[in-house]
Amino acid sequence: MPMLEQNGYRNSATQLGEPVTDEGRCLVELIEARLPEVAAGAADNDRDARFPVEVFEAFGKDGVLGATVPKELGGLGVDRLHDVALGLRNLAKVDASTALALHVQFSRGLTLTYEWQHGTPQAQALAERLLRGMATGERLVCGAVKDHHSAVTTLAPDGNGGWVLSGRKTLVSMAPIATDFVVYAQWRAEHGPVLLTAPVVSREAPGLEVLDDWDGLGMRASGTLDVVFDDCPVAAEDVLMRGPLDAADDAALAGQTVSSITMLGIYAGIAEAARDLAVRHGGKRATASSAAVRTLVAEIDARLFALRATAGTALAEADLLSTVLFGDLAERGRRMMRAFQYAKMIVNELGLKIVNDCLTVVGGSTYVNAHPLSRLYRDIRAGWFMQPYTYPDGVDFLSAQALGIAQHNDYMKVRAAQSPAPR
Amino acid sequence: MPMLEQNGYRNSATQLGEPVTDEGRCLVELIEARLPEVAAGAADNDRDARFPVEVFEAFGKDGVLGATVPKELGGLGVDRLHDVALGLRNLAKVDASTALALHVQFSRGLTLTYEWQHGTPQAQALAERLLRGMATGERLVCGAVKDHHSAVTTLAPDGNGGWVLSGRKTLVSMAPIATDFVVYAQWRAEHGPVLLTAPVVSREAPGLEVLDDWDGLGMRASGTLDVVFDDCPVAAEDVLMRGPLDAADDAALAGQTVSSITMLGIYAGIAEAARDLAVRHGGKRATASSAAVRTLVAEIDARLFALRATAGTALAEADLLSTVLFGDLAERGRRMMRAFQYAKMIVNELGLKIVNDCLTVVGGSTYVNAHPLSRLYRDIRAGWFMQPYTYPDGVDFLSAQALGIAQHNDYMKVRAAQSPAPR
Amino acid sequence: MPMLEQNGYRNSATQLGEPVTDEGRCLVELIEARLPEVAAGAADNDRDARFPVEVFEAFGKDGVLGATVPKELGGLGVDRLHDVALGLRNLAKVDASTALALHVQFSRGLTLTYEWQHGTPQAQALAERLLRGMATGERLVCGAVKDHHSAVTTLAPDGNGGWVLSGRKTLVSMAPIATDFVVYAQWRAEHGPVLLTAPVVSREAPGLEVLDDWDGLGMRASGTLDVVFDDCPVAAEDVLMRGPLDAADDAALAGQTVSSITMLGIYAGIAEAARDLAVRHGGKRATASSAAVRTLVAEIDARLFALRATAGTALAEADLLSTVLFGDLAERGRRMMRAFQYAKMIVNELGLKIVNDCLTVVGGSTYVNAHPLSRLYRDIRAGWFMQPYTYPDGVDFLSAQALGIAQHNDYMKVRAAQSPAPR
Amino acid sequence: MPMLEQNGYRNSATQLGEPVTDEGRCLVELIEARLPEVAAGAADNDRDARFPVEVFEAFGKDGVLGATVPKELGGLGVDRLHDVALGLRNLAKVDASTALALHVQFSRGLTLTYEWQHGTPQAQALAERLLRGMATGERLVCGAVKDHHSAVTTLAPDGNGGWVLSGRKTLVSMAPIATDFVVYAQWRAEHGPVLLTAPVVSREAPGLEVLDDWDGLGMRASGTLDVVFDDCPVAAEDVLMRGPLDAADDAALAGQTVSSITMLGIYAGIAEAARDLAVRHGGKRATASSAAVRTLVAEIDARLFALRATAGTALAEADLLSTVLFGDLAERGRRMMRAFQYAKMIVNELGLKIVNDCLTVVGGSTYVNAHPLSRLYRDIRAGWFMQPYTYPDGVDFLSAQALGIAQHNDYMKVRAAQSPAPR
Repeated sequence: MPMLEQNGYRNSATQLGEPVTDEGRCLVELIEARLPEVAAGAADNDRDARFPVEVFEAFGKDGVLGATVPKELGGLGVDRLHDVALGLRNLAKVDASTALALHVQFSRGLTLTYEWQHGTPQAQALAERLLRGMATGERLVCGAVKDHHSAVTTLAPDGNGGWVLSGRKTLVSMAPIATDFVVYAQWRAEHGPVLLTAPVVSREAPGLEVLDDWDGLGMRASGTLDVVFDDCPVAAEDVLMRGPLDAADDAALAGQTVSSITMLGIYAGIAEAARDLAVRHGGKRATASSAAVRTLVAEIDARLFALRATAGTALAEADLLSTVLFGDLAERGRRMMRAFQYAKMIVNELGLKIVNDCLTVVGGSTYVNAHPLSRLYRDIRAGWFMQPYTYPDGVDFLSAQALGIAQHNDYMKVRAAQSPAPR
Repeated sequence: MPMLEQNGYRNSATQLGEPVTDEGRCLVELIEARLPEVAAGAADNDRDARFPVEVFEAFGKDGVLGATVPKELGGLGVDRLHDVALGLRNLAKVDASTALALHVQFSRGLTLTYEWQHGTPQAQALAERLLRGMATGERLVCGAVKDHHSAVTTLAPDGNGGWVLSGRKTLVSMAPIATDFVVYAQWRAEHGPVLLTAPVVSREAPGLEVLDDWDGLGMRASGTLDVVFDDCPVAAEDVLMRGPLDAADDAALAGQTVSSITMLGIYAGIAEAARDLAVRHGGKRATASSAAVRTLVAEIDARLFALRATAGTALAEADLLSTVLFGDLAERGRRMMRAFQYAKMIVNELGLKIVNDCLTVVGGSTYVNAHPLSRLYRDIRAGWFMQPYTYPDGVDFLSAQALGIAQHNDYMKVRAAQSPAPR
Repeated sequence: MPMLEQNGYRNSATQLGEPVTDEGRCLVELIEARLPEVAAGAADNDRDARFPVEVFEAFGKDGVLGATVPKELGGLGVDRLHDVALGLRNLAKVDASTALALHVQFSRGLTLTYEWQHGTPQAQALAERLLRGMATGERLVCGAVKDHHSAVTTLAPDGNGGWVLSGRKTLVSMAPIATDFVVYAQWRAEHGPVLLTAPVVSREAPGLEVLDDWDGLGMRASGTLDVVFDDCPVAAEDVLMRGPLDAADDAALAGQTVSSITMLGIYAGIAEAARDLAVRHGGKRATASSAAVRTLVAEIDARLFALRATAGTALAEADLLSTVLFGDLAERGRRMMRAFQYAKMIVNELGLKIVNDCLTVVGGSTYVNAHPLSRLYRDIRAGWFMQPYTYPDGVDFLSAQALGIAQHNDYMKVRAAQSPAPR
Repeated sequence: MPMLEQNGYRNSATQLGEPVTDEGRCLVELIEARLPEVAAGAADNDRDARFPVEVFEAFGKDGVLGATVPKELGGLGVDRLHDVALGLRNLAKVDASTALALHVQFSRGLTLTYEWQHGTPQAQALAERLLRGMATGERLVCGAVKDHHSAVTTLAPDGNGGWVLSGRKTLVSMAPIATDFVVYAQWRAEHGPVLLTAPVVSREAPGLEVLDDWDGLGMRASGTLDVVFDDCPVAAEDVLMRGPLDAADDAALAGQTVSSITMLGIYAGIAEAARDLAVRHGGKRATASSAAVRTLVAEIDARLFALRATAGTALAEADLLSTVLFGDLAERGRRMMRAFQYAKMIVNELGLKIVNDCLTVVGGSTYVNAHPLSRLYRDIRAGWFMQPYTYPDGVDFLSAQALGIAQHNDYMKVRAAQSPAPR
């Protein structure tokens, strides 16, 4: 409807339609310009589980890798979760794997900015150094959260004021090109409680190895790998402290929401890509007369609207609350996480329904790996496994919130505490 | 979270949480003040299918009956669909029937305001007269859209410059206290196309009879009755013209959206009332330990969030577009109706799931008519039948929009054209 | 397909299509003959919550009230759960309330027959007396299982070798015409464990009162009432003993399955009645061209097939196992209950979906209490509350079975044990 | 429950639990014996899209490849669809691809047996020749039904009393080892209607080429390939005639049901394999305490019961009707197809839900191609595309049946008639 748009009409933010800030618009446009080359490689990268290194080089030149870095530090200064999610959604419509990997960098930008603004002086200095590097595209910073089943990742003093890191992390996206890793590790001091720490380790650190053996069901080009730490040295100033494992502070849920909620945009993009393929096919003369196709197409569009409205609303809520830095911060954290988890549950459910119905509309030709709907069917399923939380964890969290049941909500600490004792 | 609210945090509009205008806030507060007395009568009125006359008298005194009348004409001047829906949602949490009946008055206020602003001089005069009466609470104006299966409602010239109305309408809510009826009627001139007209008839008109024989499954206190017109005289100045039956103009979809979309608030309120009952019950010690109850409660809350986000987003879209009075008005109409229909489909589906799951959580004690969840189970089902459109009509409309199939979208004209020839 | 049927083709038992025994066929035919008069009263009885006394008088004359009484004791000797369920399904297609009340009598016939065959000499004598009376239609025997929330029903020695019964039971179907009640009551002896007992009390017993104040959401003509016991005397020989509350014996699950599984037929009948109404309406020329109607009708028929297949398979499994009276009786009990609960969960889910979709196909005319689909929408919801188990209890039972979690499965004892201490 | 089984208790046929004939039991046992070696290769074959040639060689030695060939012709003589489906289900629990390929051979055995019993003398001779070869394992006979989008496969007289076949077929399972292909082809004579024919072509025929370029989403080891026919000569006696394209005879639906209905067993096996993995994981101590896991496990088991009951009932119905060779054969065909399509729709819906929920129970470790649940997630989706019919075609067929709408139901002819004119 160009007439309406020319006259200033804009989709509301909750439809994940238009950016809400100028910085967001800039990001959306920079990504837009690269979509053709992302699209060109998507099928081959999916087939070969190949990371699109050249796309990230281009993003580096464009400044996209510093999108969530503050302007003062050289970044684009996109600070609204909605706009980050919108950029990821547009990218995911073309290649969800690339969006997932880019999310890693965006997520680090957002959480490190918080450290830079509100952390201890040491944390501020560390964050600034990383953020300045991200802004130029020189640094690509991964989070490494989940322990491989075979190991508990631990940090220990090296006796000279520094640290030594050991263990193995799994499902680290963007790993093939990462320059730094923010690793979650336990420090089991002889006395006192076990502490959660977040050492930042350079890829060049002795003892660090990125394994390359992942054959994912979907998101195959996202570079989601294991990273092994074999007595890696870490400097004192490169460690962030997260407090005792058994100390529950729901205020931390705010940061965890910020870190992951923009992924909702990725799943919106996948569902939308599927919808466009189905509608294009359904619009062919013979198919359009099918009762089931008409019914499915109407349901697909209604569900996509709901998916976008739900994701957009959760993002708007998180954006609003992320600016509220006073009052009951624990309740603020729970509130952000509730909105996120409500939306995550619905996005997962509707996203899978939409993609599945799109395969039904298009038919048997989708049942080969090279068909884009096959890729979308595999990619969409990743959403259910993304942190925080899994579906069972989400049920526990949301029902505890509704029913007034006390529980420890910090999934990173809970997960760490569930680890087997180190060897 | 009082701390956050005290510091200015507000739920975003798309969660149907807070009014977006001062006028809306005023309406919400006036309704709020009457909730205890609405609640007090709800169970008995449901049992006896009794219309809450005294509640509407109170609303009249409060100015609520003129909520959507412009301030210039003495009303509250609420002009945002979102805020109207929010008021209805709050009311529906206590009694959906009352909200449904009040919606009728609000809806007339909104659509007559459009006539007053943009209609022909005759339409403006008629609209102003009605709106001024609505503002004082003296006039209660129903829409009478759907023909009884036994009749085609027709308007014919009386030979003296006036008109005569004959036929029978069904499912007219708020009928017990209506002072005026806006009736959809066909004018089958001897030559030329059949025209759709909207005569406005006073309850006192000779030949008009409100039947009182409705035993509804739900919404039993909404005063949803049949109205018979037996050669009622209608003055020339009291007739609005809607054009030929076979002339499709999608611009008209805008008005039809405005007229009905705020009902989404009613179904949000029903679902939310059910949720609150279930959570209160589920929070009891013994029940809270049940795996199924925890899973259901999490799903209920996630779905309620999605329901509110979807309804809120459609209302925001309609509010935005309703201010755009230039450009491609047909596309504007379709766009408003698409957003409405997407949301209606989802609200119906999620609303029923939520209410049904709430009955499961609370258990067998809900299976008596006096239990509020029984009422909600019966009330929620009304949403599927509300105009426009039914589910099958919605599938036709939305799939035609997606697949580029041309069809006549004006359900009032299509329905009129499908009527059997008059006796 | 008369040709096929004339040539001996029969629907397989698992479609709940044809009786599998001659006695079953006799029952089906006797019920068939009364369907017109049951149908004639159904709407009025639903409106007025009136029990169809005259129908049960007719069933008494026909011998239907003794359908599940062994032939040796004067009954029809129907001993296959499948055939009982099939008779109830045919009846429920016309009036589910009547089927629910008749189920009470059938259920007592089946369980008392087991007492007569395998009980203690005292139990055998008691069962024979009741069964002979049921065969002639003189006795109508209710089960009274669920305590009213205000009371724990208890049995205590009267000091003269007899007993005294006190308490209140709720949701006792067929109560308006019952001659006898099998009541579940606790005996809290001074020493030793609390025992579960089942005294059989005559309606004429001093202190027994049947309350008549039920306004159900559905199943309104089933005579589902409360019964109060105010120090009712019970003779020594009229009490069946069920063992200590805390003694779990999964062998008892067999009897509980037999007692309730035939109700699956009732919900199959409701769904089928709804389907027939929808298909009749959907077959009209204008409607048949609707994409959504065609899709819904196909889904309705597929789900009805699945509902019948699932119910039929569970009934066949229960019939097969009920003849196996050796070996691991606890595992036999669990196996019967598992099949029943799988089917109950699916029948409830599919039944509601089917009925709801049928309302959608037929449209707004269904939204009055007098429309048969309104009744079906209210009736179908009863299935979720029927014992054993509710949905949350079913989840606990089935997941414990799958995951190897030990728990006490006898819902009657568990429920009794959860009762508050008597006043 | 060994005690019960030792005493003669058997799962009813409708649970797809036990064979109903001795021949069926023999087949089940022969397959059972090979499961370890099938299992051993499944993961690698899935990864490499490699056909398990050695498994089929073993099946040939065992006589399994002649399972559905009559005993008189040297086969095992399994003639019940239920037992064939049961064998496929057991095999699919270990590797669905292998089961899908084996189904091709079983299906040809069943349909060629019908030709041998009821066909023209020419058809009988051809069928006997093929069946005898299948019994010894020397012949592996594919059906080639679906035209590649680039071609209409046609048969034309060669001028010397023989025929010439041209075109390209797609999605031909078991193609890597096939010795013969039953190909559906159009004969467009100069005069008269277009005829559907089924030439049988040897793999050695000049001009026949099996392409090897399939990279399926799932069922990757099933050898589902394209076959090109470049003016292949076909002898006169090797062509079966199927009548004019526009001649609808619903009697043909019987053969199409027989040909495909046993595939339901494959999807039951996939769902069951997923369930077993989920329950094994869910049974771990930490997981078993999760509310969502308990709820999901109960739902999974209930749905699996329904899936098996529905498939089993449709198979029982088809077995019963396949023996009825008199009366209204068109109605018999429709009845068989209705039961099949009801079940297919439900099996597809429940199967996907079950597998998806199992991934949720087990969690993120399933999201690699090497995890068996990843394979099951990809394999289960094939069911929706299997002939006859796709979901949209199924909706058309079933709704037409219910609503009394006349249509051409023979999907092979309809599909052929929709083909573009040959080049």
